Amino acid sequence: MTDVQMSPQNLKKLVIEKLTDASLVQEHAEVVADVLVHADLRGVSSHGVLRTEHYVRRLKEGSINPNPLFSMKETGPCSATFDGDDGMGHVVMKEAMDQAIDMARKNGIGTIGIVNSSHCGALSYFVQQAAEENIVGMAVTHTDNIVVPFGGAKPYFGTNPIAYGFPARNHKPVVLDMATSHVAFGKVLHAREAGKDIPNNWGVDASGQATTNPHDVSYLLPFAGPKGYGLGMVVDILSGVLTGSSFGPNITKMYGDYDKKRKLGHFIMTINPAMFTNVDDFLDSMDQMIDDIHQVEPAKGFEKVLVPGEPEQLKEEQALREGVTITKTINDYLMQ
Amino acid sequence: MTDVQMSPQNLKKLVIEKLTDASLVQEHAEVVADVLVHADLRGVSSHGVLRTEHYVRRLKEGSINPNPLFSMKETGPCSATFDGDDGMGHVVMKEAMDQAIDMARKNGIGTIGIVNSSHCGALSYFVQQAAEENIVGMAVTHTDNIVVPFGGAKPYFGTNPIAYGFPARNHKPVVLDMATSHVAFGKVLHAREAGKDIPNNWGVDASGQATTNPHDVSYLLPFAGPKGYGLGMVVDILSGVLTGSSFGPNITKMYGDYDKKRKLGHFIMTINPAMFTNVDDFLDSMDQMIDDIHQVEPAKGFEKVLVPGEPEQLKEEQALREGVTITKTINDYLMQ
Repeated sequence: MTDVQMSPQNLKKLVIEKLTDASLVQEHAEVVADVLVHADLRGVSSHGVLRTEHYVRRLKEGSINPNPLFSMKETGPCSATFDGDDGMGHVVMKEAMDQAIDMARKNGIGTIGIVNSSHCGALSYFVQQAAEENIVGMAVTHTDNIVVPFGGAKPYFGTNPIAYGFPARNHKPVVLDMATSHVAFGKVLHAREAGKDIPNNWGVDASGQATTNPHDVSYLLPFAGPKGYGLGMVVDILSGVLTGSSFGPNITKMYGDYDKKRKLGHFIMTINPAMFTNVDDFLDSMDQMIDDIHQVEPAKGFEKVLVPGEPEQLKEEQALREGVTITKTINDYLMQ
Repeated sequence: MTDVQMSPQNLKKLVIEKLTDASLVQEHAEVVADVLVHADLRGVSSHGVLRTEHYVRRLKEGSINPNPLFSMKETGPCSATFDGDDGMGHVVMKEAMDQAIDMARKNGIGTIGIVNSSHCGALSYFVQQAAEENIVGMAVTHTDNIVVPFGGAKPYFGTNPIAYGFPARNHKPVVLDMATSHVAFGKVLHAREAGKDIPNNWGVDASGQATTNPHDVSYLLPFAGPKGYGLGMVVDILSGVLTGSSFGPNITKMYGDYDKKRKLGHFIMTINPAMFTNVDDFLDSMDQMIDDIHQVEPAKGFEKVLVPGEPEQLKEEQALREGVTITKTINDYLMQ
């Protein structure tokens, strides 16, 4: 299959057209396109424009509100609840993060529990949004269940990602965005296509047994056993239980139930470093830490030790020069 | 070597005597003993009374202040800095967590950056302290460097643990307390004694190569590669950079430099669930999630799926009935 190179601007334009054709308001379509292309630029195509078709289907079947009315209620000086009115999760998260950044500027800390949202794309976008304002950002979201708990044969939690963004002075922000499963299901699908075996800590078969055959994988394993399982639970408690949303297996499936609103919860937090230290010192120390880490002797097989988010930032720089790579299938869909 | 069974009360008494003999004020010795015995009761003996000798040495060599004057400065409605005046970290953390719980009760959220602290024992104690007050607790602390970054041959971060405590209604709190290394160094030492090989994701030799020979392990590996590395960095940014403390390899070694104050930083956060949802609903949903998880079909080799902290809570129940098990060496030290 031939891949296609495209400028991020053109790619966004195509995505916006698809989404507005499905009746999403222009302003929201622009945000969604920006979040999706952000992921493609960073080489995280699993969260990129390939999801457009999915969102279009949900918009058309009525389970995403194309013109939502957001509402926020401040519950304390550093906390709020945010209702996404079943709109596109990307827009919900971006707007809520803007509010959390403001809250951290005014009162030092911002925590927002978000309800009635939908799939929001790559969390890296939103924590980077905070970091670019010299505010520390944290974001979590639950997802529908596919990961077995440690010691379990059937799934309870989703891949429940967790993300942090930290500003630096001369360096780009440190951006950690990771699922609490060992890998995304996309990696299993890729191994199926490639006809390759997988390590035995990626997934389990329908009976809950770990397997190295990608075709046998029914559910995913949490990373590092009890640790990934524990953090996955933290994410669902913050996103689901704490916000008063659904949790565990009660979360509407992403693929399936297309006419059912997803009602996802997210939880975000922002920290103004000025509450704890001198901001200049903070930014200088972040640069120092990054410089130090770049100086760590690399292990065999590695050229240089990078900080979280840096591999993706390097891909982004290249893609901004050379264009974003998308598959022909996706190109055909977007051009049709 | 014969193990000794002892009641938690007697064990605490012995620890208190040792610490007060080394001139720690009585009130602080009582807190430290409670935190250490908490760990032994839960089967986490690596963080239990075996550390007493270490603290006594630091107290005697002047690197822990036996009678510190704590001070806290509120920097916003939901944030503060806390100076431990080089006292025992356990007491610093307990006092700071009390303040953070109060802050969450009053203003919804509590975040405290702690400086001039020392080794604080098991973080589970402090997040449980919050959870028992129906407040969500989070705590992180950096430690001296022993873990190689992903792709690195030499250590930069410590085992940098991260802990969360969530209240439930009828169930005990969910308590997740985990290092960001794959295992603690104690597990490597145990394999050395037992003459057994170790999995190749525990540690590396002096040249940074992964090894299955426990005798060759010089440094530890982060869990799940870039994920544990990334979270270890998050912990050191929050504990070190954000609080204005040392970070990375600049942190005073725990074992060594006994006359040098450790100047550790910690970061804690509390969340009052009432800011986001009805507290009764929160507690009921926590119980529901725990009950659900207990009903998940166990994988082969497991009897039941447990929630984070539950294996330790079961050990604690047993130890409260039957006494705490300590080694003869530790018993001899405490009795001498």
